[in-house]
Amino acid sequence: MFRTLALLLAAFSLPALAQHDPLASWNAGPAKARIVAFVKAVTDDAGSGYVAPARRIAVFDNDGTLWSEQPAYFQLLFAIDRVKALAPKHPEWQSKQPFKAAIEGDLKALAASGEKGLGELVMATHAGMSTEQFEQVVREWIATARHPLLKRPYTELVYQPMVELLAYLRANGFKTYIVSGGGIEFVRPWAERVYGIPPEQVIGSSIVVKYASVDGKTALLRQPRVNFIDDKAGKPVAIHYHIGRRPIAAFGNSDGDFEMLEWTTAGPGTTLGMIVHHTDAAREFAYDRKSGVGRLDRALTEAPKRGWEVIDMKRDWATVFKVSAP
Amino acid sequence: MFRTLALLLAAFSLPALAQHDPLASWNAGPAKARIVAFVKAVTDDAGSGYVAPARRIAVFDNDGTLWSEQPAYFQLLFAIDRVKALAPKHPEWQSKQPFKAAIEGDLKALAASGEKGLGELVMATHAGMSTEQFEQVVREWIATARHPLLKRPYTELVYQPMVELLAYLRANGFKTYIVSGGGIEFVRPWAERVYGIPPEQVIGSSIVVKYASVDGKTALLRQPRVNFIDDKAGKPVAIHYHIGRRPIAAFGNSDGDFEMLEWTTAGPGTTLGMIVHHTDAAREFAYDRKSGVGRLDRALTEAPKRGWEVIDMKRDWATVFKVSAP
Repeated sequence: MFRTLALLLAAFSLPALAQHDPLASWNAGPAKARIVAFVKAVTDDAGSGYVAPARRIAVFDNDGTLWSEQPAYFQLLFAIDRVKALAPKHPEWQSKQPFKAAIEGDLKALAASGEKGLGELVMATHAGMSTEQFEQVVREWIATARHPLLKRPYTELVYQPMVELLAYLRANGFKTYIVSGGGIEFVRPWAERVYGIPPEQVIGSSIVVKYASVDGKTALLRQPRVNFIDDKAGKPVAIHYHIGRRPIAAFGNSDGDFEMLEWTTAGPGTTLGMIVHHTDAAREFAYDRKSGVGRLDRALTEAPKRGWEVIDMKRDWATVFKVSAP
Repeated sequence: MFRTLALLLAAFSLPALAQHDPLASWNAGPAKARIVAFVKAVTDDAGSGYVAPARRIAVFDNDGTLWSEQPAYFQLLFAIDRVKALAPKHPEWQSKQPFKAAIEGDLKALAASGEKGLGELVMATHAGMSTEQFEQVVREWIATARHPLLKRPYTELVYQPMVELLAYLRANGFKTYIVSGGGIEFVRPWAERVYGIPPEQVIGSSIVVKYASVDGKTALLRQPRVNFIDDKAGKPVAIHYHIGRRPIAAFGNSDGDFEMLEWTTAGPGTTLGMIVHHTDAAREFAYDRKSGVGRLDRALTEAPKRGWEVIDMKRDWATVFKVSAP
């Protein structure tokens, strides 16, 4: 009886499986075709483009590539929320920039405070606690905070087509990594749940941590000093330290990803470089060469001659954001 | 016919499988019992010691824990061989320390050159080329060089019981990492073949690498500057950056592993800390509190009260070195 039932179920589900499109949120077009052709080439062990599973490393920028980054990097919005939460303990912030701007939610004044001001803001909100305490702060924020314009939790602002792409690559033997200009400890606490990427496959910028004993217990304490900036030429360097192999696929959206795309696609054998181009003002945002956040200029110009595929968000994505909360 | 043969083979091999001891090179005793009990506890999902597979991270020191380290760290012996190979291009080395000592194979004089001298030696032999060129140099050396006293290839000086332990942990859902004071790029080229540990699971000390264009081709160029020393309190820090989770098992052999053992075994839930104690002058070497290489003093003293199991090489290991070339 059970056997008959199992066979019946198998008979029904096989055609269903055969029809299932792992990239359902991608419209038919050059971007989707390029992805499928690449995966077919590297997994076909009779073909000349075959790549052994151990070498199937794919790297993804995060901000603007896997989730949104407007009107400001979400980690900056996190820092602003932290300043507001900590403000009662810091009355001096009410009249001191960049903290005053953060408390007032004035992004323009914040931007005017420049790299130095933003650095101060980050250190005041990201350092001075243990790594475990910081992780808890990020977990609470990501679970409760909402995007100021789109009024949705940040984890709902991840791109459905990219989530499908990550899963599709993994189903074909790839190890997927995040290589973010953002903080490694800001991304790790939620990357596994949202993207299926475990902490050890998240690479990012970092501040110095120090191993120390506090009240008889050991801890890793976050120091107000930059350790590594995982952006531009820092990306291939960080990939080298963390992974120790050259990726065969890289996905970015800004000039900060140029060197990662360059290093990946200069490798031997079959490689793929793709750029998410934000062209959809109706469903998300439209920006590129002139944007302060996620500027895409040189990489957009050089993409054709370097063989990098540009994903036109408006044209190529049937859905933009993750449909349900992850 | 083939089917009958297959069934016959299966009938013979099943009892053999049932009797197979994955830790065959470990003598029965407290060390082996501790390992088996730990693995049983973390994998028994009905027990109170259960740990989900994603959290089963085990970290291993390399020198003196997975392979020998006498009469000097093998990476120093590599540097000496490199000095000899490069000497024809550097006539000035014939009369200049520490190079003169290296060319003459005089370990005492080398040691006398101190940290500064050894640093010079490392930078002269480890920097000034691309990461890919350096990898090739390491591959050639590891394939051809022989240990000066034991007259065997270095990859035959890995410990058979530890190779079995690595495989046993992986068979039980663990991810195994090397966390070495040695150079990350010195260990990676052969760790996968010898230990089954892929490059992305090797953590170590490093020099600065710089992404640059050379003759129109991009490369990661090794600079003569220290980037990170993965020793002592640096080990928990490096584990944090690379893995982002606290391990549940740590294996070391010297005071350089103290903080890694401490950080691991201070974690919540079931944990294991073990120390390889070199007690076997007949089969390998005997040294601990007074040794210049791999000094084991404070960790040996504190092991009992911290619950760290000391592996007595002479007592606990039926075999020391890998039986055949890996």
